[in-house]
Amino acid sequence: MADEANHATSQASVSESNRSRIIKHLYHYGISSRAQIAKALELTPAAITKITARLIEAGMIEEAGDLEGSKNRRSIGLKLDTARFHIIGIKFARSLVQIGVFDLCGNALSFENLPTVYDNTINDTIAIIHQRVNGLLTDDPAIVAIGMAVPGPYLRHVGRTAVVSSMQGWRKINFIDEFAHAFRVPVFIEQDARAGALAHFLFDPDVHEDGNLAYYLVGEGVGLGVIDNGFLINGALGAATEIGHISIDVNGRPCDCGNYGCLERYCSTPSIHTMLIGDGKIVPDAAEMTHTDAARALFAKANEGDARACAMVRTIARYVGYGCVTIFNGFNPKHIIIGDIVSEAGPMLLEEVRATVAERAIPEINESTSITLSALSADAAVSGAAAVAVTQFLEHPSVFFDVS
Amino acid sequence: MADEANHATSQASVSESNRSRIIKHLYHYGISSRAQIAKALELTPAAITKITARLIEAGMIEEAGDLEGSKNRRSIGLKLDTARFHIIGIKFARSLVQIGVFDLCGNALSFENLPTVYDNTINDTIAIIHQRVNGLLTDDPAIVAIGMAVPGPYLRHVGRTAVVSSMQGWRKINFIDEFAHAFRVPVFIEQDARAGALAHFLFDPDVHEDGNLAYYLVGEGVGLGVIDNGFLINGALGAATEIGHISIDVNGRPCDCGNYGCLERYCSTPSIHTMLIGDGKIVPDAAEMTHTDAARALFAKANEGDARACAMVRTIARYVGYGCVTIFNGFNPKHIIIGDIVSEAGPMLLEEVRATVAERAIPEINESTSITLSALSADAAVSGAAAVAVTQFLEHPSVFFDVS
Repeated sequence: MADEANHATSQASVSESNRSRIIKHLYHYGISSRAQIAKALELTPAAITKITARLIEAGMIEEAGDLEGSKNRRSIGLKLDTARFHIIGIKFARSLVQIGVFDLCGNALSFENLPTVYDNTINDTIAIIHQRVNGLLTDDPAIVAIGMAVPGPYLRHVGRTAVVSSMQGWRKINFIDEFAHAFRVPVFIEQDARAGALAHFLFDPDVHEDGNLAYYLVGEGVGLGVIDNGFLINGALGAATEIGHISIDVNGRPCDCGNYGCLERYCSTPSIHTMLIGDGKIVPDAAEMTHTDAARALFAKANEGDARACAMVRTIARYVGYGCVTIFNGFNPKHIIIGDIVSEAGPMLLEEVRATVAERAIPEINESTSITLSALSADAAVSGAAAVAVTQFLEHPSVFFDVS
Repeated sequence: MADEANHATSQASVSESNRSRIIKHLYHYGISSRAQIAKALELTPAAITKITARLIEAGMIEEAGDLEGSKNRRSIGLKLDTARFHIIGIKFARSLVQIGVFDLCGNALSFENLPTVYDNTINDTIAIIHQRVNGLLTDDPAIVAIGMAVPGPYLRHVGRTAVVSSMQGWRKINFIDEFAHAFRVPVFIEQDARAGALAHFLFDPDVHEDGNLAYYLVGEGVGLGVIDNGFLINGALGAATEIGHISIDVNGRPCDCGNYGCLERYCSTPSIHTMLIGDGKIVPDAAEMTHTDAARALFAKANEGDARACAMVRTIARYVGYGCVTIFNGFNPKHIIIGDIVSEAGPMLLEEVRATVAERAIPEINESTSITLSALSADAAVSGAAAVAVTQFLEHPSVFFDVS
């Protein structure tokens, strides 16, 4: 009897793994015949036939007519219709919550910024999220999952962010208690920069194949998500790759995390905001603005050619560049993709980042690493929130469909 | 025909994976019955019987008599005799090459320091290594593989270290060309701190289960190896986790890697040596010593209670601690194990490292992370070199035995 049970367990986990591999193949390579899938995945045709029959029956994939140019007896294409399944992505930042609906490829179907969040309106914001999500789920039966991106350090098993200032008001919210079982579809929660890394890994074919990339989020906070050899680096508590709290100067500015000289204290939008208020001239009304608006006003001034604004952007870029050098030496990714608000400074920023890195990085690593600005839509981290759920959809089909 | 070939390929890779899982089970859990293995690995008894028969026939594992206390009809123990297979480990540092022979559990059978290496004696050292290894291979037919640990950043696919000062003379040596096919057994090469991480992961049962650990090598260089969720973090070129070249002060001391304020410039033995020569009093004849001997002389003085020496050890420990904080925020391992020469400073060092970390780390992460000195023998990185080869032995049995 024990042997029977073990056999069953074994078969179940092997089958789920093979299902996932087939779904991922169709996701990344598009319409494919059973023979093509069998060859690519080194699975027997019999296994492919059996598994795909169940996936078709469950409605997860479909047949898509004869493949053209095929020399085989019979070559029907199989298809994962990535437009047919929808995902809600929700990005939490200190003062801004964004909600979008996406297809499986990260194309936005709808998008909304919630009202600016203050420490004393967090409960209202939570209530609005429940209301909006339930509305979306009622209106769109194609929604199969919800992904959430929250600022790090996010303590994965606990469900809340660690003791760090930038989410002070949010720390009392336990994301798992609040959302995990609140809706008719499953909810998946991930640190925001890691969500951005998943978005690029899934939605950007150019970087997918390499399997080594870092998404470097420079916005209200500074975060990092790293995919090494196809897998996210997580750490024991899910709190790894917190570049924003790696010190670039052990004698530097104190940070509420307890450390000194944290990168986040030099190039996040709150730090930029402080610089602008201190300067007083580039953006005279900076003190009345949000961090985001102040940073955007600086970038606009710099792009108009204002010398003082350009100098400040270059100063910020050097700090972003120091962070890149740390990423090189810490994680050696093949691609660093800079995203979020500070990346909106554009080519002027990127040029100075690259110059800083060229001065300070180990040459062989610099030569083989690309540094770019995120080409995903301005709301990359929201599609990143969706990517967290898409990843689960591709990895664990049986959570979503009765395919066993 | 194509289908047949695919089927065969698939079977081969699945079989190798299952063989490896069985070998690893016997390695980590000791003598086990076929039924115990089947249960633990969720494999069918039929598969276990078939695979273990081939492994026994090939001489990789053996039957070890009836298991005591078993209620089953017939329960014969299977055993991987870890004392029966030997591995040569070779550790390269700038001025010191060490060669040891180990069993599969990292127990040293023999050990040798080669003569101190100078830039102009590297070729002699290479010749001695060839000669010694061939001698060992002739004398001990139980040797099945060679593992080598070299200082990072080691460019895995290129076979040499990157442009960094501490191995200047060694940079002309291509380790792959020089050693990969030079002997009757296979050779595996890895960055030294990563080798140390593998040694602790394999040879230390306490940390193995957690699967999240960092080996922090503080010696002639400063390096790091990180195992995240059971896998080494490598990076695109194999140059990730180079903590020694992560800056702790972007306005700090210049390093030959191009960066400023590299951690290695503050707590490696060459840096300690420079401090001692500058001081002039703690170890008056420091200038005539090697880096290692000078550091050891300092630690001896500190342990005798010399106040000046103690203060210098504490200064060094604070820098080692800053590195730990970076490791927390960068990799969030469950265990940080400090090894190599500087760890010989002992409890005085560890206490100050922990105090520094307690001041500066995110509290939730500090509470859940252990920091210890390596309990492996003083030559941990040499057993680490062996661990590189042991890992391959466990992962790829068919490279070593005709088991297919």
